[in-house]
Amino acid sequence: MPKFSLDDIEETGGTGYPPEFAGVVDGRQARRLTGPAGLTQFGVNLVRLKPGAWSAQRHWHTHEDEFVWLVEGEARLVTDEGETVMRPGDCAGFPAGEPDGHCLINRSQADCVFLVVGSRLDADGAHYPDIDLEAKPGRYSGPGLFTRKDGSPV
Amino acid sequence: MPKFSLDDIEETGGTGYPPEFAGVVDGRQARRLTGPAGLTQFGVNLVRLKPGAWSAQRHWHTHEDEFVWLVEGEARLVTDEGETVMRPGDCAGFPAGEPDGHCLINRSQADCVFLVVGSRLDADGAHYPDIDLEAKPGRYSGPGLFTRKDGSPV
Repeated sequence: MPKFSLDDIEETGGTGYPPEFAGVVDGRQARRLTGPAGLTQFGVNLVRLKPGAWSAQRHWHTHEDEFVWLVEGEARLVTDEGETVMRPGDCAGFPAGEPDGHCLINRSQADCVFLVVGSRLDADGAHYPDIDLEAKPGRYSGPGLFTRKDGSPV
Repeated sequence: MPKFSLDDIEETGGTGYPPEFAGVVDGRQARRLTGPAGLTQFGVNLVRLKPGAWSAQRHWHTHEDEFVWLVEGEARLVTDEGETVMRPGDCAGFPAGEPDGHCLINRSQADCVFLVVGSRLDADGAHYPDIDLEAKPGRYSGPGLFTRKDGSPV
């Protein structure tokens, strides 16, 4: 049977960010649900943010759509417009190529949990409006590559 | 802000199935979450099944991955192997082209709710092992087409 339980999937941390940008995601852990199911066309992750943790550096994707559903606790959604609170039942969508960076930050005193869905497109890169970082295409076919905004190594 | 609430999205019913196959999904209603968010690369629906309702006729997709997460209540997952119970926290993945038809059936006395994610690939069709029906490619670029297994009109 293709069934499995969330409890079968380990929550893992870690990030590919360069060390100078990695601290904000220290309290982020994710259950990666589609890989164990043998799916490759999109990713579905159930992400837990400890108090203070960020989902990511604020970013937008060049080629991938992204969708978020807040399941438990409370997070702040940060975009160019500022911050707004997300509570259970709140959703947000970020169309590919829309140049408005986003991330979730847990400013509460309890864990929050959200589901995130994203396409898996090797052409995708990401822009980070607040920091001197770019994600280049190729992170599904290889290890991925971060550079400075001027293309130099980071 | 790109945020919205589940409460902003209407639960809608209906099906494109030919009338002779439509009865099983009478008690199915869905909130379609990605369209209102402006996303086109995948679909995320939150589906409610009334007691007795099926998620779909048992089917498998030729080109699209599909992922299911049981959020509330209880459903039976039906595949070639038979039936297994899905409870909150249970997930299942159905890789594109895997010729094992699946559907969820609510055999309980209460509603069940599940999240389903699928790619949106116009090349996709579906096979229905239990009934004389085929879904042909083209349902995103046009209205979609069902035929009998021998290709004749249904």
